[in-house]
Amino acid sequence: MSAAAMTASIGSDMGRWQPNAAGRLQKAALELYAKRGYEETTVAEIAERAGLTERTFFRHFTDKREVLFRGSHELEGLIVDAVEGAPAAATPIEAIAVGVAAAGAIFDAPSRPHARQRQAVIEANPELQERELVKLASLAAALAEALRRRGVQDPAAELSADAGIAVFRVAFDRWLHDDSGREFAQFVRDGIAELRTVTSG
Amino acid sequence: MSAAAMTASIGSDMGRWQPNAAGRLQKAALELYAKRGYEETTVAEIAERAGLTERTFFRHFTDKREVLFRGSHELEGLIVDAVEGAPAAATPIEAIAVGVAAAGAIFDAPSRPHARQRQAVIEANPELQERELVKLASLAAALAEALRRRGVQDPAAELSADAGIAVFRVAFDRWLHDDSGREFAQFVRDGIAELRTVTSG
Repeated sequence: MSAAAMTASIGSDMGRWQPNAAGRLQKAALELYAKRGYEETTVAEIAERAGLTERTFFRHFTDKREVLFRGSHELEGLIVDAVEGAPAAATPIEAIAVGVAAAGAIFDAPSRPHARQRQAVIEANPELQERELVKLASLAAALAEALRRRGVQDPAAELSADAGIAVFRVAFDRWLHDDSGREFAQFVRDGIAELRTVTSG
Repeated sequence: MSAAAMTASIGSDMGRWQPNAAGRLQKAALELYAKRGYEETTVAEIAERAGLTERTFFRHFTDKREVLFRGSHELEGLIVDAVEGAPAAATPIEAIAVGVAAAGAIFDAPSRPHARQRQAVIEANPELQERELVKLASLAAALAEALRRRGVQDPAAELSADAGIAVFRVAFDRWLHDDSGREFAQFVRDGIAELRTVTSG
């Protein structure tokens, strides 16, 4: 192999294995969506801002929307695993509470600025809001399925899962706007307690 | 006015004021969606099957999707009005229960075949499922807003509204598949009772 070919090969490998390329692309995308609007931002601009190529972008994301929803798969896995790992004696709603609280591993203090920026972009765009609804419906279905695997029958499985999503949404919103340093899991516990008060009323 | 002009005028008026044109178009559309698929059906075919013109179709519906979701506006109004009309002493979840049960005025025995056919069409099409999610989210927001007007604070308003939607979905699904003649409102009362059991667990 000539020296030129080797360099080209190294260059190509570097393009393929940029350290934390996905993270850099996400950061660049969010900044552009926030500054110029989601609709107006192109993949070429995101790649340029991240100092990467469009090809690298498409190696990590199918489109510019996926940049915002990549994390929802990880979130669902985290919550479902925690429901499955809840003590055998836990009631359905207790298992759901354990599951939703586990999302605190993602929603921690360092991730909040990113989460706030993402939320603002989504709230400005009806198409993205629809996508968020679809992801929450998918999470609800996965939660109900996890409860069924624990032997919970319907409609208890479905109602517990949907109640868990309601608590998740309230907890997430409070965590997002909080500056008291309370943890996400604490907001979940508060939400479950409030749900109990509300439904027993 | 000549006789020919009068006839043309009468014909045009008849076109504009067809008795129950919207109902006929809905029936024709559902039959075609069920038989040939939603994607494959055109407005021209719906109008032809209903014995009406495309112009008449567009006087009643903006597009072929709206045929399936026209009723959701009426549903939301019915439920929200019932929440507002609930006794002043009703707790948030009781007011929500009154509201959701009021949907029984729409979901009665004669409407069930139509509802079943509509549900099958929606379940076969992801785009329509997303639209259904958007409508349910809109209903949840309207319910929470109705509770706030009754003086209920957040997060109780939001949690009660979301819990109400969970009960609504379970009750609707059971009513849809029921052949015992029980009323929709009864499924709602059962759902509320099950929700209480689940959340107190």
